[in-house]
Amino acid sequence: MDMLWSGWGDPAGAKPLPDTVIGQLRDMLGVRPREAAPVALGEVAVPEPRLEPAARRALAAALVGADGGGGADVGEDHVRTDPEARIRHTRGKSTPDLLRIRDGDVTDIPEAVLYPASHDEVLAVLRACTEHGLAVVPFGGGTSVVGGLAPGRPRPFVALDLRRMDGLLALDRVSRTATLQSGLRAPQAEALLAGHGFTLGHFPQSYEWATIGGFAATRSSGQASAGHGRFDEMVLALTLATPEGTLETGRAPRSAAGPDLRQLVLGSEGAFGVITSVTVRIRPVPRARVYEGWRFDSFEQGSAALRRLAQDGPRPTVLRLSDETETLIGLAQPEAIGSGTARPAGCTAVAGYEGTEEDTAYRRRGAAAVLRACGGTPLGEEPGRNWARGRFSAPYLRDSLLDAGALAETLETAAFWSGVPALYTAVRDALTGTLTESGTPPLVMCHISHIYENGASLYFTVVSAQGDGDPVAHWTRAKHAANEAILAAGGTITHHHAVGTDHRDWYVREIGPLGTDALRAVKQRLDPAGILSPGVLLPTD
Amino acid sequence: MDMLWSGWGDPAGAKPLPDTVIGQLRDMLGVRPREAAPVALGEVAVPEPRLEPAARRALAAALVGADGGGGADVGEDHVRTDPEARIRHTRGKSTPDLLRIRDGDVTDIPEAVLYPASHDEVLAVLRACTEHGLAVVPFGGGTSVVGGLAPGRPRPFVALDLRRMDGLLALDRVSRTATLQSGLRAPQAEALLAGHGFTLGHFPQSYEWATIGGFAATRSSGQASAGHGRFDEMVLALTLATPEGTLETGRAPRSAAGPDLRQLVLGSEGAFGVITSVTVRIRPVPRARVYEGWRFDSFEQGSAALRRLAQDGPRPTVLRLSDETETLIGLAQPEAIGSGTARPAGCTAVAGYEGTEEDTAYRRRGAAAVLRACGGTPLGEEPGRNWARGRFSAPYLRDSLLDAGALAETLETAAFWSGVPALYTAVRDALTGTLTESGTPPLVMCHISHIYENGASLYFTVVSAQGDGDPVAHWTRAKHAANEAILAAGGTITHHHAVGTDHRDWYVREIGPLGTDALRAVKQRLDPAGILSPGVLLPTD
Repeated sequence: MDMLWSGWGDPAGAKPLPDTVIGQLRDMLGVRPREAAPVALGEVAVPEPRLEPAARRALAAALVGADGGGGADVGEDHVRTDPEARIRHTRGKSTPDLLRIRDGDVTDIPEAVLYPASHDEVLAVLRACTEHGLAVVPFGGGTSVVGGLAPGRPRPFVALDLRRMDGLLALDRVSRTATLQSGLRAPQAEALLAGHGFTLGHFPQSYEWATIGGFAATRSSGQASAGHGRFDEMVLALTLATPEGTLETGRAPRSAAGPDLRQLVLGSEGAFGVITSVTVRIRPVPRARVYEGWRFDSFEQGSAALRRLAQDGPRPTVLRLSDETETLIGLAQPEAIGSGTARPAGCTAVAGYEGTEEDTAYRRRGAAAVLRACGGTPLGEEPGRNWARGRFSAPYLRDSLLDAGALAETLETAAFWSGVPALYTAVRDALTGTLTESGTPPLVMCHISHIYENGASLYFTVVSAQGDGDPVAHWTRAKHAANEAILAAGGTITHHHAVGTDHRDWYVREIGPLGTDALRAVKQRLDPAGILSPGVLLPTD
Repeated sequence: MDMLWSGWGDPAGAKPLPDTVIGQLRDMLGVRPREAAPVALGEVAVPEPRLEPAARRALAAALVGADGGGGADVGEDHVRTDPEARIRHTRGKSTPDLLRIRDGDVTDIPEAVLYPASHDEVLAVLRACTEHGLAVVPFGGGTSVVGGLAPGRPRPFVALDLRRMDGLLALDRVSRTATLQSGLRAPQAEALLAGHGFTLGHFPQSYEWATIGGFAATRSSGQASAGHGRFDEMVLALTLATPEGTLETGRAPRSAAGPDLRQLVLGSEGAFGVITSVTVRIRPVPRARVYEGWRFDSFEQGSAALRRLAQDGPRPTVLRLSDETETLIGLAQPEAIGSGTARPAGCTAVAGYEGTEEDTAYRRRGAAAVLRACGGTPLGEEPGRNWARGRFSAPYLRDSLLDAGALAETLETAAFWSGVPALYTAVRDALTGTLTESGTPPLVMCHISHIYENGASLYFTVVSAQGDGDPVAHWTRAKHAANEAILAAGGTITHHHAVGTDHRDWYVREIGPLGTDALRAVKQRLDPAGILSPGVLLPTD
């Protein structure tokens, strides 16, 4: 199934909001229905592809398979230039992306979509694109929310859709490693691993659509990161196809042999090459899973409790805490919005435990004692079950909110624990201040989504009216203010959404001119013609 | 106290071997006393420093402090060109380094030794060296065993001794982080942290002499890595002084903001810049510590037990396993060699637990059940205490062995678990085969020194006679054979000793031409004149 071209996920997934919620949005936030309906897929005006016949032939020739069997005709099947394929590979799934595509704006459309089947075909495509002056944007699940799929204009580019590279290449039961092709969607990967009794344990909100390669390219972090770590911590080896050849990294779990090149490829967002396979750490499918809710009087109290578990343990597999506003709105249970269910005051946390029965029970008991000592009240398993049921559904709710004429977007950051309170206040104030000044006072909600011994991430959700003018510009003002607030408060510009084009200008300030130049030197060496995702991650000049 | 110039550690530390051991070395390995006694420090023939007066003035001017107070005279105090200072900064502490320096060979001597007191002074030194064509080798504890302190000849170089940069710059109790200057020796750092109730938990064999900056530059791994992680996992932020300015990395524990630049600096071994401070994760000083011994029938059986704990837990803080030969020789308890104490047959492991009383007891109980289920027999706490007492003493034993005319050296590697048995056999065979062919059949011992979910490190110790000719060449043949065996068996050329100059040629094969070129591109950008540790880590051209 293809993702909804103009929104998230399963085209049948988003449900209209209940009238009570629409009424609340109108009364509280001034949200009014949009005047124009979104355009239909068939009505989008798509420019002719800027692809010379010679370039098209070269691309088709690159996609005929390792043995060349079948000839150019076969390769031709894997070069698509029809409007639908190109529209479906236009940008990602940020709210600005959705607002634009719903308006039929395809200014960032690729000239063609390529479907390579192997590492060698990717290498061949990169050579052909270098020769023909085409930029290349790797495309996994298409779930980027940071402009990672829209390179700088006006150079023509092709989208390299990796869906045919969906194999489990190797599984080592002794070492507990698996080598996965980068185009595998996460549920496919989990199914393949489950056939051998293993799991990757990586469940970000984009889980149902995102790919292994995308996780690696963007340093994704899943909802079970407290127990399973971030994706960059799961990666043991990578293979990268670059215009200059193949880079293979990772001969041992850890090494003192120089800088860790894996960590140079992770987070490179297609700017250094195309990740074609990833060797990851796998773990036995947990025998026990339990998620439960906890209540705290305040976000401050709950944060202190999470910090204690992160630092002294025992550590849950899942641990997250909503602030007062998010708890009240119950965004974690979107299906319950407006249902009138009584909610506890204060802040709600979810703690989850996965593993063997014994270990799960030990950690749950120990963590419960800590959470109680920190002022927490157990809410039982129902809030945990509700969270687990709705854990991938927030993007559908966003579609419903956009349909109802609201603006809804998320952003995230991270800092060391001592900086978290100031970062929280600074970002919330920036969003509230900017959107209020723009005439659309917002609801700003936040949760701690990932914890570490030394810090935590903050994940903000903003809902407001779209304002009178261009809703993208309306949001962009608030987003830029949040970015400035993050940098000023000492946070990182992104904890798990990556840089893309949207965060790039703040990213280069975060890492400084020398850090930026070091990465540009790497890019220049691996991609001398600058064809790889130009303007993504790093400025083009 | 300065380290013994011609050996390890405290000059009073190495004890002559008992006559029984000398007899065993003679009878078993053909070790004979060396004919020539080592030269005395005052007798080493040191060439005049190749340092133009203008260069010397520029270096002194770089070391007058941030405010320039005191003038060039003050800076002059921190530029030493006397023979003793230069000899003490000649090479590191590998066995070839010791054999050479004991022979009075100072071909790798620095022209001067500089003692900067601040990051800004380091920047000023790098500018002065660039201007005057001097190479620069950062010098921490001087404990390199991979030729990391001897850059390529014949360019003159200065040693940058960081001992004056020994401050605790910041401590954040909430985030549990500390910022340490890079010249701090590990025991100094632990003492400063202990004053606040914290520990770093990093205890490599070089602990008593090595520095924070050296740990970062070489991706050190400590004996408690099972519980505390490697040094590269403890690092949250670094400051690097380069000829092109300052690079600061690390705004949050984890981030999705591009490639992890921390992991580009870690392991860079002075080739990209001088690490001037490091922010590390700290933990409360453990209330409980217990180390105990376990016996296994074979290395294979013991390895399987370690793997189970590494993968399924509960995980000890310290976990190591000697092979049959090392168990027999009892290298882990050098003071007991030749004492005639009865030893258990098979293989001995040490498991240690550090933390709160409750957590330590839980993990110890759980791990004991696993170890028993895997065929282990508990040996009680005495072997653990013996290990803890002797944990930093092996380098002293090496000095004693060299004094007795033996060759003694170590090397290490790592691989994924499924590759560990073949790697073990390949390296042992290469060492045994080469040294036997050379006429000095060796003792080759090994232990698993560090464990991970997905693999482990192997640490080899070799003892043999020195052969008839040049003992350095004698050992080098065996070392090169081991390097080849490591690469062929899929291991990494170094798990925690780093690359230096000794591993460089195998390292570039391990990471491939494109990986090498990517790193050279970074070096070229940060150090365009190539003054930083030329030939260390990366080839000079």
